[in-house]
Amino acid sequence: MASESGKLWGGRFVGTVDPIMEKFNSSITYDQHLWEADVQGSKAYSRGLEKAGLLTKAEMDQILHGLDKVAEEWAQGTFKLNPNDEDIHTANERRLKELIGETAGKLHTGRSRNDQVVTDLRLWMRQNCSTLSALLCELIRTMVDRAEAERDVLFPGYTHLQRAQPIRWSHWILSGAIAGNPLGVDRELLRAELDFGAITLNSMDATSERDFVAEFLFWASLCMTHLSRMAEDLILYGTKEFSFVQLSDAYSTGSSLMPQKKNPDSLELIRSKAGRVFGRCAGLLMTLKGLPSTYNKDLQEDKEAVFEVSNTMSAVLQVATGVISTLQIHHENMGRALSPDMLATDLAYYLVRKGMPFRQAHEASGKAVFMAETKGVALNQLSLQELQTISPLFSGDVSHVWDYAHSVEQYKALGGTARSSVDWQIGQLRALLRAHQAKSPPHASPK
Amino acid sequence: MASESGKLWGGRFVGTVDPIMEKFNSSITYDQHLWEADVQGSKAYSRGLEKAGLLTKAEMDQILHGLDKVAEEWAQGTFKLNPNDEDIHTANERRLKELIGETAGKLHTGRSRNDQVVTDLRLWMRQNCSTLSALLCELIRTMVDRAEAERDVLFPGYTHLQRAQPIRWSHWILSGAIAGNPLGVDRELLRAELDFGAITLNSMDATSERDFVAEFLFWASLCMTHLSRMAEDLILYGTKEFSFVQLSDAYSTGSSLMPQKKNPDSLELIRSKAGRVFGRCAGLLMTLKGLPSTYNKDLQEDKEAVFEVSNTMSAVLQVATGVISTLQIHHENMGRALSPDMLATDLAYYLVRKGMPFRQAHEASGKAVFMAETKGVALNQLSLQELQTISPLFSGDVSHVWDYAHSVEQYKALGGTARSSVDWQIGQLRALLRAHQAKSPPHASPK
Amino acid sequence: MASESGKLWGGRFVGTVDPIMEKFNSSITYDQHLWEADVQGSKAYSRGLEKAGLLTKAEMDQILHGLDKVAEEWAQGTFKLNPNDEDIHTANERRLKELIGETAGKLHTGRSRNDQVVTDLRLWMRQNCSTLSALLCELIRTMVDRAEAERDVLFPGYTHLQRAQPIRWSHWILSGAIAGNPLGVDRELLRAELDFGAITLNSMDATSERDFVAEFLFWASLCMTHLSRMAEDLILYGTKEFSFVQLSDAYSTGSSLMPQKKNPDSLELIRSKAGRVFGRCAGLLMTLKGLPSTYNKDLQEDKEAVFEVSNTMSAVLQVATGVISTLQIHHENMGRALSPDMLATDLAYYLVRKGMPFRQAHEASGKAVFMAETKGVALNQLSLQELQTISPLFSGDVSHVWDYAHSVEQYKALGGTARSSVDWQIGQLRALLRAHQAKSPPHASPK
Amino acid sequence: MASESGKLWGGRFVGTVDPIMEKFNSSITYDQHLWEADVQGSKAYSRGLEKAGLLTKAEMDQILHGLDKVAEEWAQGTFKLNPNDEDIHTANERRLKELIGETAGKLHTGRSRNDQVVTDLRLWMRQNCSTLSALLCELIRTMVDRAEAERDVLFPGYTHLQRAQPIRWSHWILSGAIAGNPLGVDRELLRAELDFGAITLNSMDATSERDFVAEFLFWASLCMTHLSRMAEDLILYGTKEFSFVQLSDAYSTGSSLMPQKKNPDSLELIRSKAGRVFGRCAGLLMTLKGLPSTYNKDLQEDKEAVFEVSNTMSAVLQVATGVISTLQIHHENMGRALSPDMLATDLAYYLVRKGMPFRQAHEASGKAVFMAETKGVALNQLSLQELQTISPLFSGDVSHVWDYAHSVEQYKALGGTARSSVDWQIGQLRALLRAHQAKSPPHASPK
Repeated sequence: MASESGKLWGGRFVGTVDPIMEKFNSSITYDQHLWEADVQGSKAYSRGLEKAGLLTKAEMDQILHGLDKVAEEWAQGTFKLNPNDEDIHTANERRLKELIGETAGKLHTGRSRNDQVVTDLRLWMRQNCSTLSALLCELIRTMVDRAEAERDVLFPGYTHLQRAQPIRWSHWILSGAIAGNPLGVDRELLRAELDFGAITLNSMDATSERDFVAEFLFWASLCMTHLSRMAEDLILYGTKEFSFVQLSDAYSTGSSLMPQKKNPDSLELIRSKAGRVFGRCAGLLMTLKGLPSTYNKDLQEDKEAVFEVSNTMSAVLQVATGVISTLQIHHENMGRALSPDMLATDLAYYLVRKGMPFRQAHEASGKAVFMAETKGVALNQLSLQELQTISPLFSGDVSHVWDYAHSVEQYKALGGTARSSVDWQIGQLRALLRAHQAKSPPHASPK
Repeated sequence: MASESGKLWGGRFVGTVDPIMEKFNSSITYDQHLWEADVQGSKAYSRGLEKAGLLTKAEMDQILHGLDKVAEEWAQGTFKLNPNDEDIHTANERRLKELIGETAGKLHTGRSRNDQVVTDLRLWMRQNCSTLSALLCELIRTMVDRAEAERDVLFPGYTHLQRAQPIRWSHWILSGAIAGNPLGVDRELLRAELDFGAITLNSMDATSERDFVAEFLFWASLCMTHLSRMAEDLILYGTKEFSFVQLSDAYSTGSSLMPQKKNPDSLELIRSKAGRVFGRCAGLLMTLKGLPSTYNKDLQEDKEAVFEVSNTMSAVLQVATGVISTLQIHHENMGRALSPDMLATDLAYYLVRKGMPFRQAHEASGKAVFMAETKGVALNQLSLQELQTISPLFSGDVSHVWDYAHSVEQYKALGGTARSSVDWQIGQLRALLRAHQAKSPPHASPK
Repeated sequence: MASESGKLWGGRFVGTVDPIMEKFNSSITYDQHLWEADVQGSKAYSRGLEKAGLLTKAEMDQILHGLDKVAEEWAQGTFKLNPNDEDIHTANERRLKELIGETAGKLHTGRSRNDQVVTDLRLWMRQNCSTLSALLCELIRTMVDRAEAERDVLFPGYTHLQRAQPIRWSHWILSGAIAGNPLGVDRELLRAELDFGAITLNSMDATSERDFVAEFLFWASLCMTHLSRMAEDLILYGTKEFSFVQLSDAYSTGSSLMPQKKNPDSLELIRSKAGRVFGRCAGLLMTLKGLPSTYNKDLQEDKEAVFEVSNTMSAVLQVATGVISTLQIHHENMGRALSPDMLATDLAYYLVRKGMPFRQAHEASGKAVFMAETKGVALNQLSLQELQTISPLFSGDVSHVWDYAHSVEQYKALGGTARSSVDWQIGQLRALLRAHQAKSPPHASPK
Repeated sequence: MASESGKLWGGRFVGTVDPIMEKFNSSITYDQHLWEADVQGSKAYSRGLEKAGLLTKAEMDQILHGLDKVAEEWAQGTFKLNPNDEDIHTANERRLKELIGETAGKLHTGRSRNDQVVTDLRLWMRQNCSTLSALLCELIRTMVDRAEAERDVLFPGYTHLQRAQPIRWSHWILSGAIAGNPLGVDRELLRAELDFGAITLNSMDATSERDFVAEFLFWASLCMTHLSRMAEDLILYGTKEFSFVQLSDAYSTGSSLMPQKKNPDSLELIRSKAGRVFGRCAGLLMTLKGLPSTYNKDLQEDKEAVFEVSNTMSAVLQVATGVISTLQIHHENMGRALSPDMLATDLAYYLVRKGMPFRQAHEASGKAVFMAETKGVALNQLSLQELQTISPLFSGDVSHVWDYAHSVEQYKALGGTARSSVDWQIGQLRALLRAHQAKSPPHASPK
């Protein structure tokens, strides 16, 4: 009979439960991740009960002590689940009762399981976001370190995957570091609701909204989208055709059929995870859509999504850090990929400086490119006479245009590819990392 | 050194692999589901090699025997994974070599792992779709049986959740049965590619496209969307306010806080899974988007999606079958919910039959509804004189309109709610189930 | 010849463009929304050029004057697009050249169209988010006003759509107001990047990332998810079965077939838009996934998504405001829906106050519910003797439990449903609205 | 008063409608696309009414004639919408009434607008899918023609974007043609429900399910996913680094800043549309999720999705056809990209043919690759002695391995890259195109 089984709804049920339904309903297989948060939350709640006069000091102490014992069993791997433990909350309460007896039954006075579920998940996420944030900082630090060390390597900047203008390699790295900016996690991490600095305004909304979950999943989706783009770039740069970078063996795998190959599996997996993570975000929003207010069991979908995404992010961030820190770059190939036609914009600016409006200068430079292509020579091999057929403003000093190092140094505006600007970016990111470290709680270090 | 570790890419690697990368790269934790398909595929392949003269008859026999042994170990749970088994394919090959020695090395002559992965997944899905299809038939059969038994129960049909017209309860059930129509699975199941009746046209496309996975995930998403709508209806019908149905205790749970409650958790979980399943479909399509052709490691995302969705569908279909088969209906409440204003359309048709164009009749009927509302009486309590102020076409025979059973019997067109039409629908669905059973392979019975 | 057509890439092209490609490539049909932002951005840029010595004061004045003229033509609807205007930027520049001659060609010195596109979109969104934010405040204000006026109406709180405990109607309204909290928009609105208080750190990243678009689309998706849930509640509350609320005719439509019906089309449309808005968010993330860094034409997908979502949000927020402000509530029905079994938790608390641990009390109360159900009487009609067979702790004062108004007053904790707590919530939200209004720029008023 | 306005729900409404709500509710701005289908459906329905005795022959003729007139006005662009026309169905009926008087009011006897909406959309989609199918055939035909003409061009096959083995260029083209296989559209096009060969089984389901819409959107999403991958390949092949193909000027655009660039905008747009199209599919499924059965206004979201996706597909297919037909290939660069290490698998097969098990041969070939890399020579420049240090099975005939043309000819299995196999693929696809053309209805030709 149901009341003997110790199920929470006690004396009411007369039928028996379909075992498939029981398994379908149960969340213990995945929500046991929450054991620590559950104990932590229950300890806080029992202190609240004592303050409210609903527990005596002695009862509270008994409960606190019992909960510590429960936590110890989980930590040591000796906690034994029993078939009627449908979720972590019932499991912990059942065990507490075995340990301390009837007083355990007072612990959840005035507290619904729906409250408990949400509180535990928030606690878990606060801890977990700290860890992810630390991993993200590690990735950014690695990128900034490389950017600083390899500041003088030039290679082509691309738009539309067409070679555009010479840029510093560090400029590319920093664009990735910014894309993975930890401010995103901070925003979630430090939101009032997660650090419990504020209380929820409305009890109906509190058990029913999952904005903190949706926003975490979206942050992860957006972060993965950035990482998928960085991975795409590195996969391309690592092809035989580009040959700008070489992945370390530690992050590549060979082919079962073709012995000459070294495949960038790490980067392909990073790229692919953008889909998985976004899928979880999409799934949760669809689950939430059109739900009646307050708690509905549908909300149980939140936890597996959070756990899976958190695991994925943790692995992705660590692998990405490893990839970036061990990546070998081939400067000579990068240099060889620079070609005079990438200086066509500089040629236009040359004319602008001589007084020609930009649109005309752009057209004149385009004519030069076309002339060089037609003659089958490089842009910098057009003679002065040839250039002068396009515009009489060309004179001998045009030869200064054909210097890649000089070209990149023009972009001194903040955010540009000049050395001073790249140094400034490095400085900004270092400051950000320091600021982040200063405010990180001690538990934030990745395991 | 790497070649000693037995990794497939043998003598080439000189670095060591980051252990996080190794775990990130490995698929063995989930692709071991494929063990049977992998053995089955390898057995077929070794027969092909013998035919092509690449294996002697004796070697083939040795391999076939070894593979049977491998399968036996998996079936008995004695197969031992070893840390270098990165996927099911390397695990089985490694074990085969331990069992039969060097001949094992000939098994994969001219066959890439990418081929093997796709073939195994297709084999697994063929089997699995049969199982899901059988479960779906079970659900439909249950619905058809109920529909037949409860043909004479009338209740309100709703559109926009507003009571519209009286319909048979069976008509609602059958609308759900059609929504879960197994033709969907059949389509996938029996497509040429899945029963291997045809060969793939192009080898590049064969390892790279995952249409069969995407289509399976979409079928599941669409099926779940239908089931989410059926669940929503039943949740509403089970509220105190509707009180049309009562869920069996086997598919409900109680509240930890409120002893009087019985929550439709089973239906809420079914509804919620639409999000999860669709999320997997969305995630896979995003992963596929913009991938270079042929194999990229990104494609590894396909398997977990398929396994998770397949498990979810299996549970959902069984729970839905249980819910429908044990659901109790409250005919009296259903009957009480019928009200004369739901016959307003019939009132309009009465006037149409007397010669009034439908749009005018509709307006006249609307006026009657408004008059009844204003006077605070039911529509059928308007006196003949009152009706005649709206149209002189009303006469004494209007009283026949106010009979619900007569109203539903008007809808004799195929697909309608008249008893004959509902019987026809039952017949059609029974024929479909029989046809499906006739062509199901013997292995299709659910476990 | 191409150079005659005035296309930006001037002297280079020799082929002709496929007209379908031209249309496929063109964005002018939708990006003309940006005309004002484009003029505003170009005016700022020309001032920058003058400061940098690349324009004389006279040239700058000529350009500023010309741009004002362009803006005037747009504002008055006299701007004439020409077939070669592929986007708003080329259209405005083309017109400027017609108005002021060659000086126009100097305007875009050192500025790529990719910069221009991003800047314009950010400017447009800053303005647009202000408008949406004001509309959202209007909705919240309406909800808070109603909540204040109807504080004393009690009705059932539901979880799992099962009647749970009596709550104030205002408590429900406020849970919705919180769900539509404008802090979401504020976050986007006031982010450093959107108010241009900060500059972008890296030029590659600046043209390539669309986080501000993705975050806007996600904010809209999450906001719509909340509104879809509020709409679902109101659709249910408006059914004949619930009959708690009645939608004003201004937000309902009739049926073409059934004259008695009044359908909640406004709420159904609000609910449905959650799908559309999320679809745009999903689509953009998929487009971004795996793109090479910097600008790729794929990014052009951002604008239609933003415009469509912004229009949808604007309509939804206004319709929702109208629905809430004109909604009629039926207190009597709300009151009638309260039933003694909803006080079962209070009955358990009664025993807790007499010293019984909560879990036992919960079980005892469950037994009382079961006893009442079995006897076919209401929970409050069990005699004291009957209750005492369950627990000897029951005594005469149990009769005080059966008062709904007393029941809700117990929940005085912040966020609860007691009158004082509801007043506190109203106060909090009013303070928030005031704070928001104080910082809103004058241009934020909705049109 | 409402009944004067001619709104369908006639005499009932007493309030006035919020104009924003009216616009929010109205679908006429987009559903006027359905004018032809609506007239066609109404003509068929009036014939049905006559057969059922609800219209006289004379009335039917009057209606048919009036509907032809309505159609004529739409076709000639003279149909004038009026502010009360909320959708195409009311607009056409209103106009019919103006043209033929009261008889028009009989047209919709026994037919709800929900029926009409679904029928019209199905009719429109049947026509539209024919057109898309023809466009898809055109694309495939173009690919097959090129594949036939360029059969003898070899270039590297890639997996993981790493050069793998030499393949025929035609083999790549055909892998794309198969990916865009028209069977997908056919499946939808010819499903019983769309050609109305069968009737819907259940009236509740008929107005409520949108499977035909969801499946169309999913077909489009999957098709776009394939095209996004083909576009990605061509974008890569068109980079300076690969230089395998050059896009025609008709499908490229220049840069506003960098005169030397020619950007593959057409391909980038094709790639990006995968996101947009999938977003519509995702949005629709989310809208459907959890809806109560039968018609709810939420379903109105279906039409804009279908129209937008259909337009997008039509443009994408035509642009893709143009791109493929005008693409220039650089054989010399393709040939130069072949390198001896791509024959490492052939080297392993050489050893297999001498009797070595494949796994050992693969390892031996890997050692040869490593030896060549270490010595800094090409794989085919290792001397026989050097090879023999790896395996004594190497002998003089190993030199035959180093011939690319010979290498590709080994893959004669169906689907392979040997000339005979490529010819077979061309034959298969041509047969498919012929078969498709034979069964296409005459109205299927694209406009």
